[in-house]
Amino acid sequence: MLKGPFLSKNWMCSSENYENAKWVLIGLPYDGTCSNKPGTRFAPQAVRNASWGLEEYSPIVDKDFNEISFYDAGDLEFALGNRDQILLQIENNIDEALKDGKRTFAIGGEHLVTLPQIKAFSKKYPDLIVVHFDAHCDLRNEYLGEKLSHACVMKRVVDIIGEENLFQIGIRSGEKMEFDWMRTNKTLLSDKNIAKEIFTKISNKPVFITLDVDVLDPSVMPGTGTQEAGGMSFAELIDWLLLLKSNNIVGMDLVELSPDYDMSGASTATVAKLAREMLIYFG
Amino acid sequence: MLKGPFLSKNWMCSSENYENAKWVLIGLPYDGTCSNKPGTRFAPQAVRNASWGLEEYSPIVDKDFNEISFYDAGDLEFALGNRDQILLQIENNIDEALKDGKRTFAIGGEHLVTLPQIKAFSKKYPDLIVVHFDAHCDLRNEYLGEKLSHACVMKRVVDIIGEENLFQIGIRSGEKMEFDWMRTNKTLLSDKNIAKEIFTKISNKPVFITLDVDVLDPSVMPGTGTQEAGGMSFAELIDWLLLLKSNNIVGMDLVELSPDYDMSGASTATVAKLAREMLIYFG
Amino acid sequence: MLKGPFLSKNWMCSSENYENAKWVLIGLPYDGTCSNKPGTRFAPQAVRNASWGLEEYSPIVDKDFNEISFYDAGDLEFALGNRDQILLQIENNIDEALKDGKRTFAIGGEHLVTLPQIKAFSKKYPDLIVVHFDAHCDLRNEYLGEKLSHACVMKRVVDIIGEENLFQIGIRSGEKMEFDWMRTNKTLLSDKNIAKEIFTKISNKPVFITLDVDVLDPSVMPGTGTQEAGGMSFAELIDWLLLLKSNNIVGMDLVELSPDYDMSGASTATVAKLAREMLIYFG
Amino acid sequence: MLKGPFLSKNWMCSSENYENAKWVLIGLPYDGTCSNKPGTRFAPQAVRNASWGLEEYSPIVDKDFNEISFYDAGDLEFALGNRDQILLQIENNIDEALKDGKRTFAIGGEHLVTLPQIKAFSKKYPDLIVVHFDAHCDLRNEYLGEKLSHACVMKRVVDIIGEENLFQIGIRSGEKMEFDWMRTNKTLLSDKNIAKEIFTKISNKPVFITLDVDVLDPSVMPGTGTQEAGGMSFAELIDWLLLLKSNNIVGMDLVELSPDYDMSGASTATVAKLAREMLIYFG
Amino acid sequence: MLKGPFLSKNWMCSSENYENAKWVLIGLPYDGTCSNKPGTRFAPQAVRNASWGLEEYSPIVDKDFNEISFYDAGDLEFALGNRDQILLQIENNIDEALKDGKRTFAIGGEHLVTLPQIKAFSKKYPDLIVVHFDAHCDLRNEYLGEKLSHACVMKRVVDIIGEENLFQIGIRSGEKMEFDWMRTNKTLLSDKNIAKEIFTKISNKPVFITLDVDVLDPSVMPGTGTQEAGGMSFAELIDWLLLLKSNNIVGMDLVELSPDYDMSGASTATVAKLAREMLIYFG
Amino acid sequence: MLKGPFLSKNWMCSSENYENAKWVLIGLPYDGTCSNKPGTRFAPQAVRNASWGLEEYSPIVDKDFNEISFYDAGDLEFALGNRDQILLQIENNIDEALKDGKRTFAIGGEHLVTLPQIKAFSKKYPDLIVVHFDAHCDLRNEYLGEKLSHACVMKRVVDIIGEENLFQIGIRSGEKMEFDWMRTNKTLLSDKNIAKEIFTKISNKPVFITLDVDVLDPSVMPGTGTQEAGGMSFAELIDWLLLLKSNNIVGMDLVELSPDYDMSGASTATVAKLAREMLIYFG
Repeated sequence: MLKGPFLSKNWMCSSENYENAKWVLIGLPYDGTCSNKPGTRFAPQAVRNASWGLEEYSPIVDKDFNEISFYDAGDLEFALGNRDQILLQIENNIDEALKDGKRTFAIGGEHLVTLPQIKAFSKKYPDLIVVHFDAHCDLRNEYLGEKLSHACVMKRVVDIIGEENLFQIGIRSGEKMEFDWMRTNKTLLSDKNIAKEIFTKISNKPVFITLDVDVLDPSVMPGTGTQEAGGMSFAELIDWLLLLKSNNIVGMDLVELSPDYDMSGASTATVAKLAREMLIYFG
Repeated sequence: MLKGPFLSKNWMCSSENYENAKWVLIGLPYDGTCSNKPGTRFAPQAVRNASWGLEEYSPIVDKDFNEISFYDAGDLEFALGNRDQILLQIENNIDEALKDGKRTFAIGGEHLVTLPQIKAFSKKYPDLIVVHFDAHCDLRNEYLGEKLSHACVMKRVVDIIGEENLFQIGIRSGEKMEFDWMRTNKTLLSDKNIAKEIFTKISNKPVFITLDVDVLDPSVMPGTGTQEAGGMSFAELIDWLLLLKSNNIVGMDLVELSPDYDMSGASTATVAKLAREMLIYFG
Repeated sequence: MLKGPFLSKNWMCSSENYENAKWVLIGLPYDGTCSNKPGTRFAPQAVRNASWGLEEYSPIVDKDFNEISFYDAGDLEFALGNRDQILLQIENNIDEALKDGKRTFAIGGEHLVTLPQIKAFSKKYPDLIVVHFDAHCDLRNEYLGEKLSHACVMKRVVDIIGEENLFQIGIRSGEKMEFDWMRTNKTLLSDKNIAKEIFTKISNKPVFITLDVDVLDPSVMPGTGTQEAGGMSFAELIDWLLLLKSNNIVGMDLVELSPDYDMSGASTATVAKLAREMLIYFG
Repeated sequence: MLKGPFLSKNWMCSSENYENAKWVLIGLPYDGTCSNKPGTRFAPQAVRNASWGLEEYSPIVDKDFNEISFYDAGDLEFALGNRDQILLQIENNIDEALKDGKRTFAIGGEHLVTLPQIKAFSKKYPDLIVVHFDAHCDLRNEYLGEKLSHACVMKRVVDIIGEENLFQIGIRSGEKMEFDWMRTNKTLLSDKNIAKEIFTKISNKPVFITLDVDVLDPSVMPGTGTQEAGGMSFAELIDWLLLLKSNNIVGMDLVELSPDYDMSGASTATVAKLAREMLIYFG
Repeated sequence: MLKGPFLSKNWMCSSENYENAKWVLIGLPYDGTCSNKPGTRFAPQAVRNASWGLEEYSPIVDKDFNEISFYDAGDLEFALGNRDQILLQIENNIDEALKDGKRTFAIGGEHLVTLPQIKAFSKKYPDLIVVHFDAHCDLRNEYLGEKLSHACVMKRVVDIIGEENLFQIGIRSGEKMEFDWMRTNKTLLSDKNIAKEIFTKISNKPVFITLDVDVLDPSVMPGTGTQEAGGMSFAELIDWLLLLKSNNIVGMDLVELSPDYDMSGASTATVAKLAREMLIYFG
Repeated sequence: MLKGPFLSKNWMCSSENYENAKWVLIGLPYDGTCSNKPGTRFAPQAVRNASWGLEEYSPIVDKDFNEISFYDAGDLEFALGNRDQILLQIENNIDEALKDGKRTFAIGGEHLVTLPQIKAFSKKYPDLIVVHFDAHCDLRNEYLGEKLSHACVMKRVVDIIGEENLFQIGIRSGEKMEFDWMRTNKTLLSDKNIAKEIFTKISNKPVFITLDVDVLDPSVMPGTGTQEAGGMSFAELIDWLLLLKSNNIVGMDLVELSPDYDMSGASTATVAKLAREMLIYFG
């Protein structure tokens, strides 16, 4: 038999079996409603490859990736073109994972993949809180006549969980109507102290974090479909995430990395590191 | 008033009004079912920009682009994500152009955009012939469960026009079943003399040319979604096209250019030149 | 007739006619004296295309782009190689626009295109103030023997308007002589409070803003000819621009974007957003 | 349990277990002696990913990839920097595979990885023939003082198998001494008829094919370290390979793809297709 | 003292002193009248760097680069923006080299740099023949009102040497008027046998070869400003050049490489190899 | 004789002779143990070319580059593949420079090239202090079984100079063991006031600065092998460097720029500017 050693083809530090893992990592390579630069379909595999360039230790919280119990399930295979079928396939798989007692961490794909996840989570957790990191509101009721679009995804999420259960961070682009809605419903958090208070109050509730990587400034994250100047640095994003460290995070996703638009690979490496940090903080 | 002169925002040499034009140039920026590298949505505008780098004369047939009467209608605006709605929108617009007595030349977008065009054309021309240039058969009955996919588009076209009215050129990749189908139905032309004979026989019939740019070798056309080694040179493609010079070409399309994957711009410049030549030969 | 809907070929939100517009947007695709990486000639069309990826609302000042009255005149067509002829062509067109009572917003091209604009503006506004955002002084008297070069453009501007009417922001690179000149003439503003005072004092005067995009850090703006480390973030630039919000801005330009050097498109998207913000603030 | 379906992370069509497979596919991500552009270390994983864009059928020989029995063992993990240790690790793994009765197909990495493979194969097959496709002779006795370099690899191979057992195809660059050596030893085949005769004569002998992808023209294969103008088209290479169709191919490798230098991905897609064809012809 | 060895900063194999060299290699980094993608200013240094990736021997003519006596003078420093001054500077330097009894080989830069060279050469060689390799006629009398433009350069050359002394090879793009002119004056050679006869007849005359690299197909040479599909392969170009092997080549240039548009570096490597071959054949 | 003027092939502002120069600039194009993206071998020449885009004056310290006495020795030529031989070659050359009374400034190449420099320096300066800027600890005792790797280089340096003579700045990634070691030995400086005190205390000692450019954030420095999110801005790095302005800097290096991974050239331009600033501050 071959002696190797061989490079693994799974995420760095992922465990060998599904049964014992606390978290399931799952790739959702769908970008069918993206209205600007596509290519987020290539993100899950690109991030998996890039994970092997990471070190295993987080000096930020003095904790090692090896302490985290997670299983890399791979990427779902989609029949591109059939949006509704794909959304159902995602929901069904998340349903299964939740039935098996798992927490899930999805790597998109475009932001619309968050919707079927929330459908699944809200069935199991009727009091689900969603924390939404993004440059864009994604709160349109419809976009070019479509209700199921990445520009409407958080409006659809609100239809399910209610506006009182949504918190938004980093939003800096949208229509006037969307900003007015955020002001009315006080979903947008911009002061960290207030945010900390709110997160402490909901510390007993199940929380889902959905993170569109364009919340980061385009200088940090050029590899995304709709680059929006004026965003966070990596350190600022980490500070915001750490506010949630004592919360009960039951699910997460990282969406909208489009790796081919950053040929240096820095965007992909940054998302891989972000995924590692999120698993270390919340895993 | 400003004196300019200003650069045009339309295709080089396009006429100012729709009414008198013989041909209508129309962009179809849809790439929603593409199963490999996306980005063909950016092709119509990229080719329009690149047209201004062309000269107006074709030494191959000693004819000038200025002799061609065509109108650049611009690019349709699509609600990405809703495939069926988009296909209908294309069909309706082509219906209108045909009703107005025009011939149309569409720049895709992915290959699925050919289907609604053929639907429209076959209503007006019941004896329509389709000549299909491509690296791939696109003859699957379904792909990942979907019947409306760029991998199935020519099968859907055959459903409409019948296999006896399809001719295929340059195909070099597909499933065994697709190649068996081509052998049975003798749709694949590989000898130019035989092709010339066939095209002469059908010289009184209306012909639609659909040209997937990956019929060209990836060295000539790296900027496409599914690069397939072993294709034609530009000169070989021109030779094939000239075989149709005496036919009655009532419609054409050029699909599957993905400009961002060729940062040199050579792929886009080549498609612009190809479009100019096709209009000069058949316009 | 075709039903569309079609994508516009003009800048997002531009009005259909010149006559009623308050502002004229005009592209100046000239890069003939650029001494480092060229390619700014491609900026005006690239920014126009990218404008369609923007949203129409500025949350920073709670105002909508649709409230702004501007007309996209397109890009001037230049006989590259003949610098003096091109400068004259720009001056003549700006003269016309000013005669028609317009305010103009030019997208370069290299920084030398600012000179003929200032020539035209100073004829109409003898007390013109120029506010200059840049990484580089551009104050050389000559560069490699040439007086008409992008490295000398602000010196030529000073020859016209006088040093007391120039204010400079963000400068971080130049020759010792140029920095000494700035110190002597106190043109360089580095304290925002002092700047605010000055801008208040001149609130009744006509102001032209010329903004070389390399005032932004190369991390934010890699797509420029002479990348100079140590620049502003996007948010810092916006803060500086807002200091001028109550001034009478009669003309503006945005120069030195070289889109092909940033294949992610983030630089181009950032300039498009900057242009939208400037029109919303000053339009 | 998750229902998927999931995208596989192994080579398209690879079998699930090592034991029953006839061929073993193995990645050798080493590029430590490369004297020009590095990055071939990224080739094995890039080709694996790209394999999923291929169709399974070869119209050239009317045979399906599914008929081939092969196992994708993954990529060896190397301690970069220690050339001699890495070469030994490769040799040991190939030894094991041969002991298990396998045929091996390695994806490099640089050309030096061929040497330890030949060491292993010549132990099992003392009458081994090596057929060498390349742009470069690789026949220097030493390069910059080093005997173990990618520029010397075929000289080292000759030290093991003898010059009478080496055949070279496509060579178009080297030192005068190397070309003189090839003329003296008649290793260079340039006439296909003569080659066919020779290959027929040795049809009972074990043959190892080593293919440096720069044997292809840089237009077809820009993604390689030392691009050498004047090479083969893909079709010409296939014709040469088919001459060996009746030989007993016991091992193969494909080396010197450097994927990051071809951002279109066409080079990687071409190597994936080449690997599929070689397995279909010789597997 | 430092022992090195150090990499040279000059062209591979260039001699150390000017006095004894037969040929002078000189870089002309000017791209001021280029009407499409600029950046040829970066070619001379990029080709110099790439020369070190070449081997020294030409198997095509069995001759070594070391036998050629040439001196790398470096690149002229230009005041970009002042076209007329730059053209004069080139002419003066070539005058000097010719006065010193040298033959010169210039690496452009855009094609306009050929004009001042021909001015200098025709003073020394009143019976000068120019052989012109190009995709484009470059025979316009003026372009956008300019007589000194890269699109007019060969017309200006004809003004000096007369149409009977111009031969053109590979031309495939131009205006009808330019093609008519070529037909009238029989400058375009398309049959190699006829060309060989002509070149034999003029074997006692001084010949200058000007080679625009876009004579090669864009697949071989994506890194150029105006990519024109349908060009020569590298081997075809070499065949054409070898027809001139017995002529008296007194000067040469290689123009229009734009290295940044081919990030694989293959275009630059190809131009470096072409330069080596031309020096070996004609040096 | 040619009149030029010619562009220099050396670093901007470098002096013509070695003998009188205080500093020697030397390129070390080695990347053989790099475990992630390679290509740092191209950095020394790329930075040399980019130096010509810089201005000569540092407004930060009001001092001109022309006041610095340095000689650009060029780049060492290495036999890639033989790590130990290359390290020895570097050490010998640095030994010579030190024997000649020079201070040296090396441009890598990967970080392992620092080790032989420290070997040479510690022979001449037994009380050598090393100040280490980096994203990564580089303190592993071995990496994949190798003691001579870029991941271990600072551990090897400590073996020579002792942990009390190492100071580290900007470190944000490593194994737990490495961070524990830094805490134990207090090598990591994160407070500028404390750092200033320490540097004042050692103002009479010889200091070597080794600067891995990935200490900068990947937004500022995408062109490096292992991009690590969360790093310094350019201005922060300059602030740290200025703390050492009164120290006795006897040697420096700048390592790990990989220019081909940042096609905008901003990374290379930033390293060139950093080198200029370091020479102006410490030269």
